[in-house]
Amino acid sequence: MTQWLTTPATAPCEQSRQQAISRQQQLTKPPGSLGRLEQLAIDFGGFQKTDKPQLDNIAIRVFAADHGVAAEGVSAFPQAVTVQMIHNFVAGGAAITVLARQQSADFAVVNLGTVEAFSKEPEMPTLQNIQLAAGTANFCEQPAMTPEQFSRALEVGRDSCANAPISLFIGGEMGIGNTTSAAAIFCALLDVEIDDIVGRGTGVDDAGLQRKQQAVHKGLALHINADTGPEQILRCLGGFEIAALVGAYIGNAQRGVPSLVDGYITTAAALLACRINPTVSEWLLFSHCSAEAAHALVLKSMAAKPLIDLDMRLGEGSGAGVAVSLIQSALLLHTQMATFAEAGVSGG
Amino acid sequence: MTQWLTTPATAPCEQSRQQAISRQQQLTKPPGSLGRLEQLAIDFGGFQKTDKPQLDNIAIRVFAADHGVAAEGVSAFPQAVTVQMIHNFVAGGAAITVLARQQSADFAVVNLGTVEAFSKEPEMPTLQNIQLAAGTANFCEQPAMTPEQFSRALEVGRDSCANAPISLFIGGEMGIGNTTSAAAIFCALLDVEIDDIVGRGTGVDDAGLQRKQQAVHKGLALHINADTGPEQILRCLGGFEIAALVGAYIGNAQRGVPSLVDGYITTAAALLACRINPTVSEWLLFSHCSAEAAHALVLKSMAAKPLIDLDMRLGEGSGAGVAVSLIQSALLLHTQMATFAEAGVSGG
Repeated sequence: MTQWLTTPATAPCEQSRQQAISRQQQLTKPPGSLGRLEQLAIDFGGFQKTDKPQLDNIAIRVFAADHGVAAEGVSAFPQAVTVQMIHNFVAGGAAITVLARQQSADFAVVNLGTVEAFSKEPEMPTLQNIQLAAGTANFCEQPAMTPEQFSRALEVGRDSCANAPISLFIGGEMGIGNTTSAAAIFCALLDVEIDDIVGRGTGVDDAGLQRKQQAVHKGLALHINADTGPEQILRCLGGFEIAALVGAYIGNAQRGVPSLVDGYITTAAALLACRINPTVSEWLLFSHCSAEAAHALVLKSMAAKPLIDLDMRLGEGSGAGVAVSLIQSALLLHTQMATFAEAGVSGG
Repeated sequence: MTQWLTTPATAPCEQSRQQAISRQQQLTKPPGSLGRLEQLAIDFGGFQKTDKPQLDNIAIRVFAADHGVAAEGVSAFPQAVTVQMIHNFVAGGAAITVLARQQSADFAVVNLGTVEAFSKEPEMPTLQNIQLAAGTANFCEQPAMTPEQFSRALEVGRDSCANAPISLFIGGEMGIGNTTSAAAIFCALLDVEIDDIVGRGTGVDDAGLQRKQQAVHKGLALHINADTGPEQILRCLGGFEIAALVGAYIGNAQRGVPSLVDGYITTAAALLACRINPTVSEWLLFSHCSAEAAHALVLKSMAAKPLIDLDMRLGEGSGAGVAVSLIQSALLLHTQMATFAEAGVSGG
């Protein structure tokens, strides 16, 4: 049911990349002086197969779900907050919804399964309500997802913006307990120590931090050995929203749509997506380095260079929602600056 | 003639800052999770004396002028480029003009004195043409500015956007040779080595770099001793555009308008402004760390933490023109996010 995951991503257009490189050399500035903005423009040239890439259709999808591992006492917030925040996304009062308006992005929140009952009302056009279950199972006791739930969560992500022509995808997440899930995934995939990877998430105290570390220990001991593959790691230790993000990153890369990865949890999904399907990596951009302990370490292990580092640690896609302005600048500069010839300026 | 420089800056409103701090605690997010964006919102609360600060009137002024020190062979570009780039600013093809459009900013270029003759045409509404002289004198031989030119350049900067109500000022600069002038200023003000401060600017080769170092050596030997004050340093080693930037930073702080400092050259002006009038420092924000060697070192010595670090080194105000989006995000989040009470979300 998950064979589609390994279908190769679209190949970026090398000819358009070369045209973009050439154009950057002709713009009225010392060569290289726009730094990383030049590389962004070149990448988007390849993504969009054009010498004039534009960021005109940004899609933001926040995937929400509850986590069984919350029963281990791993979060500073009660689990009721997941549903409360879904209401806040729908009402437009959450950080990512403010940023979606700033960026003129198409926004939707996708509820994949909360502990508290939740029904979609007519006045909630930005909500997709897909309750796979009342949250995942506690991975300290059993796999977080059944095979059916796992397969469905991946598909929900894949299809979350499949019908619209989009130039950039931003995935966000909301789910009390999900930094614990992300930490367990990193420990299963990377050669790292649990103590270095588990952080304070939304702000647990020392005792909470210890409970998070113990939960990760239990999950790894129960589900992971040297042969456990990335799909199994995701199904056993992940969350519905993390699986949906993996499906979205892979599906978008297959459709030729780049994704701007947000913070700690979305990076776990990005790492899984690349392990399941290495061709996806060309389509992933990294927005920011989170203040969550270990995000910097994880990004480094992936050779990922985020655009900003502002001590943010909110999730929801908010780091990407802020950093996307820089991509917008990069593409506007690339397409609107005059060349030396056009402006009659002497080259260097 | 320059007594106005030391008139104290307006004091930011402490009560509004406290209100902003309180509001940040109530917004629907873990406390502190918006990182440095929270501090930006708090700062702007104090700047604008309101609990709902807005970034609705951004003024960008690019000051252009030629430098006598260009005669020492310190730039990769011919001096004719200063005038050519003024035309490019007026036509809207330069990087900063693209960014000004992105940010819906009020833009003007102010020509303070170029070697090549230049006349304002009727179709140049965004140009102020104030030719103080055909560039500064070569500081390797005499002070860059006469006292009259110096005083006038400061006033041009001070008055460059004095008539409009603005919420943020961005100063940019254009002038072949001006990284040499900025390097000399840093060496005169800071306890640093010439070799650590002089960089490649727009891209000089090894021989050009050596000529820049020698020019700085000559300028320091001719004009600077242990008692030389910041005004004298600016008059002897600066440029018309750097003096205008100093006047703008000081004048805006006196009017209660914050400035977003750009890169290497504008940081020299910012450092001078703070040395001349220490009350100005509260009104300066730093946008980016330039790829120009030594900018990071200089920022560190000023305890300035830039918002982005993207290997840019173009000048014109372009780093600030990119980073200002992040301040926009910070203020929108501060004013538009729901509080825990408004959204019915359980606090942490």
